[in-house]
Amino acid sequence: MEPGSRGAAPGGVSVSAVLPAGGSGERLGGATPKQFCAVQGRPLVSYAVRAMERISWISDIIVVVSPENIETMKTIIEKYGHKRVTVVEGGITRHRSIFNGLKVFAENEFSSHLLQKPEVVIIHDAVRPFVEEDIISKVVMAAKEYGAAGAIRPLVSTVIASAADGCLDHSLERARYRASEMPQAFLFDIIYEAYQQCTDYDLDYGTECLHLALKYCKTNAKLVEGTADLWKVTYKRDLYAAESIIKDNLSQQVCVITDVKETLAQVGFLLPESLKSQIKVEAISVSLSKNDSRLQNIISGQCYNFVYVNEKRCALQETQELVDMLEKSNIPLLCPVVLILVHLDISENNSFSIGMEDLTTIKKFARETKKKNILVYGLLIQYK
Amino acid sequence: MEPGSRGAAPGGVSVSAVLPAGGSGERLGGATPKQFCAVQGRPLVSYAVRAMERISWISDIIVVVSPENIETMKTIIEKYGHKRVTVVEGGITRHRSIFNGLKVFAENEFSSHLLQKPEVVIIHDAVRPFVEEDIISKVVMAAKEYGAAGAIRPLVSTVIASAADGCLDHSLERARYRASEMPQAFLFDIIYEAYQQCTDYDLDYGTECLHLALKYCKTNAKLVEGTADLWKVTYKRDLYAAESIIKDNLSQQVCVITDVKETLAQVGFLLPESLKSQIKVEAISVSLSKNDSRLQNIISGQCYNFVYVNEKRCALQETQELVDMLEKSNIPLLCPVVLILVHLDISENNSFSIGMEDLTTIKKFARETKKKNILVYGLLIQYK
Repeated sequence: MEPGSRGAAPGGVSVSAVLPAGGSGERLGGATPKQFCAVQGRPLVSYAVRAMERISWISDIIVVVSPENIETMKTIIEKYGHKRVTVVEGGITRHRSIFNGLKVFAENEFSSHLLQKPEVVIIHDAVRPFVEEDIISKVVMAAKEYGAAGAIRPLVSTVIASAADGCLDHSLERARYRASEMPQAFLFDIIYEAYQQCTDYDLDYGTECLHLALKYCKTNAKLVEGTADLWKVTYKRDLYAAESIIKDNLSQQVCVITDVKETLAQVGFLLPESLKSQIKVEAISVSLSKNDSRLQNIISGQCYNFVYVNEKRCALQETQELVDMLEKSNIPLLCPVVLILVHLDISENNSFSIGMEDLTTIKKFARETKKKNILVYGLLIQYK
Repeated sequence: MEPGSRGAAPGGVSVSAVLPAGGSGERLGGATPKQFCAVQGRPLVSYAVRAMERISWISDIIVVVSPENIETMKTIIEKYGHKRVTVVEGGITRHRSIFNGLKVFAENEFSSHLLQKPEVVIIHDAVRPFVEEDIISKVVMAAKEYGAAGAIRPLVSTVIASAADGCLDHSLERARYRASEMPQAFLFDIIYEAYQQCTDYDLDYGTECLHLALKYCKTNAKLVEGTADLWKVTYKRDLYAAESIIKDNLSQQVCVITDVKETLAQVGFLLPESLKSQIKVEAISVSLSKNDSRLQNIISGQCYNFVYVNEKRCALQETQELVDMLEKSNIPLLCPVVLILVHLDISENNSFSIGMEDLTTIKKFARETKKKNILVYGLLIQYK
């Protein structure tokens, strides 16, 4: 996909997303609501926003936060360069917050300008950072067909009902039930109608959007089996787990950059292919440019490993541009960034085409970038 | 409590525990069943066994494992010095494994010698490593009174029932239901009776012991609200979380050892008191001895920080004994052990009572232990 282009949504519908992020994080036992807790130096909500944002067919992303966190959220959007995000003030409960989020597409009072009403709206939690495009597509397509859809997971524990005396009344047969997870998706008109109809009791004590669609619009949601990584960060141990998963992902991701020239593009194709079985590879074969939004996205996606393939004797100017972009992103503050410069020698001459002078220049350059926590390594490949 | 003594169980009943550890770990996505996965270098099941073992009023601990893991389990018991543990061969399902575990108290064929039948039996998962004595006491007491009891937790997600077409049938009101967790406890005769009565279908497809007690013995289990740390290690992310929690606990635990002499015991009392608000302190005021099972237990509990208070000029012989114990435990292989020697100077003389010669000896000693990953520091306190 070309940078900046907008891909088509599954089924060709228009899609936007609402992320309720108004929770207080009581169960976490800390002062900071969990969606604002830093995981690898970045607030959890920013991961969830990014998960939506990198799907090009999602038009608007509405983040609903409590009044006291509006400024915090705006700072996060600024700092991590989030795009297509509108911050909306939440209500005192989850349902009231989601309802507020939906209103920006339908009522003038909630936004300086009314946003384009989507056919399908995704609802996803700010505290589920690892949602993938695959499951989002599935619930969107199912929502288009059934009016409502939601991800489900098998129950981990047996669910029981207690009697008034605190004793077991009955236990549910585990195989017949599922845990309702996120993302969910709805035809906008259905979920908005359900929220308009529902009672104050629903708004104050309910939590399940699928339930509202069923109760008020007679829409039986399609249930879509989700993956284990959809779980909700609820307790402190979940923050630990999220941190470890993100660290794992970081070390397993590499971005290969090559120039546009044919020979290099070929290497830029072969290298990712051979790396792919070991790590997650983002390969781009455009030249380095500050205006390349794709490279910017990869960097803001906290990629810490770069391979830059070039055929210039000493591509320091281009490398410097990459170093500048990395430095500006603040990424190297958290972890060392590794940048491997691959100099591809395609000359007919058998002798090394890099002289002592160039080596000294590169070494000096690497010494300087090291101070910025960017580790530059050089590699010379003779390619005939 | 004196080393080796057996404390009284809550309510004065006799208590033993059965730990089903026969699971295959499918949901973890790895080849090793989760109960045998190493967390900080130690298999998960060993943490669960230790959680039972350090409660002195639990007589026997039955670990039920699948036939192919019996040798692995025996090796773990040997390596971590677990006591009071009997390994039993499991069945092909969870219920069949628990039933086998119970049989060693009631049927001759399952054990070389029949174990003493307890009044109350605890059932706990091998993959819930963080269970505390408090909740175990509560379920044991409730089991004595009600015949059966189990820990419960609030539901994290809404539970829903799906119709045959894969669409939502209805969702449960979250507040009315609970997740059934472990530990559970039963009057032995009740749960054994339930297992003897239950059908093959129950044994093959059921998972919930509370359900069997209700169905076959008309016993409505008492439900006891548990803490968040009772959760079950199910997915890979749970292993990450367990690892982080254990690391957190390690760095927050210190063992203070003092000699029996009055002055020292006093310091040994004051020091833990002042440290207590910061970290978890295990204070013991007996002299160092290889036969002190309490110190052995603390070491095998993976304590990495020790303070040894003495008034000898240079208590190297005693310190060497402690170093030997630590080395033998293999603990220093995983993390550096910190040992602070506090030399308490209670002489009337104002000058330092440690001369250059002693200092040199201690420095040399510390250099040697450092090679074994045990870091020795010295501290001189003049106490008048």
